[in-house]
Amino acid sequence: MVDNASSNETPFSRFFEPESIAIIGSLKEGGFGGYVVIKSLLKAGYPGRIFPINPSYPEVLGINSYPSVKDVPEPIDLALIMINARNVASVLQECAESHIRAVVVVADGFAERDAAGAKLQDEIVAMGKKQGIRIIGPNTAGIANAQNGLNPCPYDAGYYRFRKGPVTICAQSGMINPQAFAYPQMRFGISKICDFGNKCDLDEADLLEYLEKDDTTQVISMYLESIKDGRRFLAMCERVTPQKPILALKLGTTAAGVEASKSHTGSMAVDDAIFDAACAQAGVLRLREFSELFELPKMFASQPLPGGNRFAMVSYTGGVGVVAADEGGKYGLAAARLSSETASMFDEIFPGLAGMPVDLGPMIPVVKDFSTVYSRILKAVLDDENVDALFNVLWADAHGNNTKAYLETYAKLKGRTQKPVVTWVYGPNPDAILELTEKVEELGFPVFGSPERCMKALGMAAKYAAFRQGR
Amino acid sequence: MVDNASSNETPFSRFFEPESIAIIGSLKEGGFGGYVVIKSLLKAGYPGRIFPINPSYPEVLGINSYPSVKDVPEPIDLALIMINARNVASVLQECAESHIRAVVVVADGFAERDAAGAKLQDEIVAMGKKQGIRIIGPNTAGIANAQNGLNPCPYDAGYYRFRKGPVTICAQSGMINPQAFAYPQMRFGISKICDFGNKCDLDEADLLEYLEKDDTTQVISMYLESIKDGRRFLAMCERVTPQKPILALKLGTTAAGVEASKSHTGSMAVDDAIFDAACAQAGVLRLREFSELFELPKMFASQPLPGGNRFAMVSYTGGVGVVAADEGGKYGLAAARLSSETASMFDEIFPGLAGMPVDLGPMIPVVKDFSTVYSRILKAVLDDENVDALFNVLWADAHGNNTKAYLETYAKLKGRTQKPVVTWVYGPNPDAILELTEKVEELGFPVFGSPERCMKALGMAAKYAAFRQGR
Repeated sequence: MVDNASSNETPFSRFFEPESIAIIGSLKEGGFGGYVVIKSLLKAGYPGRIFPINPSYPEVLGINSYPSVKDVPEPIDLALIMINARNVASVLQECAESHIRAVVVVADGFAERDAAGAKLQDEIVAMGKKQGIRIIGPNTAGIANAQNGLNPCPYDAGYYRFRKGPVTICAQSGMINPQAFAYPQMRFGISKICDFGNKCDLDEADLLEYLEKDDTTQVISMYLESIKDGRRFLAMCERVTPQKPILALKLGTTAAGVEASKSHTGSMAVDDAIFDAACAQAGVLRLREFSELFELPKMFASQPLPGGNRFAMVSYTGGVGVVAADEGGKYGLAAARLSSETASMFDEIFPGLAGMPVDLGPMIPVVKDFSTVYSRILKAVLDDENVDALFNVLWADAHGNNTKAYLETYAKLKGRTQKPVVTWVYGPNPDAILELTEKVEELGFPVFGSPERCMKALGMAAKYAAFRQGR
Repeated sequence: MVDNASSNETPFSRFFEPESIAIIGSLKEGGFGGYVVIKSLLKAGYPGRIFPINPSYPEVLGINSYPSVKDVPEPIDLALIMINARNVASVLQECAESHIRAVVVVADGFAERDAAGAKLQDEIVAMGKKQGIRIIGPNTAGIANAQNGLNPCPYDAGYYRFRKGPVTICAQSGMINPQAFAYPQMRFGISKICDFGNKCDLDEADLLEYLEKDDTTQVISMYLESIKDGRRFLAMCERVTPQKPILALKLGTTAAGVEASKSHTGSMAVDDAIFDAACAQAGVLRLREFSELFELPKMFASQPLPGGNRFAMVSYTGGVGVVAADEGGKYGLAAARLSSETASMFDEIFPGLAGMPVDLGPMIPVVKDFSTVYSRILKAVLDDENVDALFNVLWADAHGNNTKAYLETYAKLKGRTQKPVVTWVYGPNPDAILELTEKVEELGFPVFGSPERCMKALGMAAKYAAFRQGR
């Protein structure tokens, strides 16, 4: 990040694209702190300059350390502060003197702790305003950018590498940071991560301002407890959603949740009904469970949007068909009726196959060459003019007998269908389920953990498609 | 099962406790059919006599086969029929002549298929009535009893063994049978499984009549699409729920779901609002997702009922505290306030630790002897007079550093607390999560897959406790 940055620069640019970082705090080897941050940056392949700041250490991990940021002879784009809350304001002053304009205050003990902490937080906010320093935090596990090796995670998460991809996740919680979730499991990849912590300065609206122009982000997943400026947030959502879907989990739907949110980050929750109305207006898709933050973005990261709300289902079980229809009904999805051409073809393959769901179960004991028949069925369903999307259920049998047929079929579909496909895998062998899930996702098709989650993914996609088309 | 059975005998007794079984159908080696059923019974250690019935095979798996049940020289308690739907009625006639009074019709192609199938189903119902044969099915994957090795599963599920336990699961779907779910993952064990299929004769009310007196069943999990006789079902629930919880997933909550249910098993769904009211009256706990059928029973299978609705939470993250409070609010749970004694003790351990959630996060970088401190904290929370239940969040760090402390603490709590504990495990390493989950469950404490599921488990338990106490 140089001072004459492009017109795309926003306050977040320095945080996600720094050419140099100062890490201010303990450099002792362990599971948390500056040592971990630096090791994590090195392991992630961060190409910028790293400046450890600590008067007690001449060097760490082969990198020279400095007593203060003021001793660093080169420009610093970003500083991470991991020291006692009481000392943060004076270090911010030193940052100002060194022309640092972006700071992540990892340290806790501020407004989330008590009145004294709230006072300390007010001080750093005032200092930031006065000195032109933008702050993420305090009380945060920080940020990450999978695109450029920027992974300054303060917790030892095993130093794994991200898979680069189009999903950006943010929250008022470290529960989205690398130490809390296995990002390699997000097989469609990650773009940016941001934990706002107490959100004393930069917030979700500022992040959206950056993400609007960030080409590597194609879908945004947010966990919100409070919203600092509702009007600005809504305006930013309205700028982003015509291009990229925003999925938002907002808690505080019950009185108990509102109270808990207040003590967590010291912020007031927004009224739930107002938030609902705002989401509808701005085309924001509302999530309902914590795990959806990680699981639902892959729908948008991997699949085309559906042209309508008619979903087909291919399954081994009528029971899951009822689950799917019931759940789909909540999102305005309707079970497709196969065209008469497809129906006659299916009835030739096996009597009764032409229902919805297309139930493979009765056919299995008698079918020969399952792989060929299975491919024909899936292709015919997806080519059917009455079908907008497919919910496909894979039975991972105990011995992996069907795996070859499944994978051959998905490989054939890849790149040849313009309709979204969601998949659920079930069976008696947990290892076989995991293996098949991984292989199907490597072929580009998302697998969700339950039939309900599959239908929610389709439902969100149909809702977003309708929003984009002004329906 | 002998003819002068005890007074506990109900129509289901012959199905779950047969001393002999006839398997009528194909005996060809493969992934489905009579061969699989017999192999499954042998692998599960079923001690009764097994009679394969097929005119083309003199023997299978070392067991003599007979052309017809009429050729079997000994009494048969239960028959499984796995032949073409058209021939089922005539085989039922032969069963009648052999004094068989319990039949599972695995065969499909009945009311779920078409009008001709519905007619065939009417015929077998009439035949059963006339001859005094009780029927489960048709279109079913059948039954199982983990207590006596009765696992006549018609699909090759890998021939695993059940873990015996107190949970009975039933459904109008084969999705609960051993080929569809890995029962060894239910670490608190299974008692009985019943797939009613098209439910042409025996139904959920008949099963409840049996389970009321079945000592090995302590919690019942049901998936219902339709209810044949609402009045009788309700009466049976009212007999069972004062002793054992009934958890019920009923679909058809949307119009699309109702339509799908009709085509699945040919039965009409019950009105959702009526079912809700009936559940409230009879103390039935309503489930909302398919996976809850397998996951929520362990709460009742392993934990005492809470004495009230005040839950404590020990965690590394305020964010999950908001999720928990919000979700708990849906079930009438309230965050506990620690007593002043506990609070002072916690503030001595670490400033700010005495909040709710009890947030271990800030303490972690500085604490010495985590195991001892952790045990003290959990014990103090559970001993606190203001706490009725504990939601415990375990961070499985990348290197398993905390595992020893967690397991030592759970081992100490085991058998020494009369308050329920639910656990969620998160972290950056999926294998570490699985391993820790397994170990905690082996110590007798249930681990749920999400914070929301933990709170639902606590909420159901509190609701059931209130029902039992007439609150």
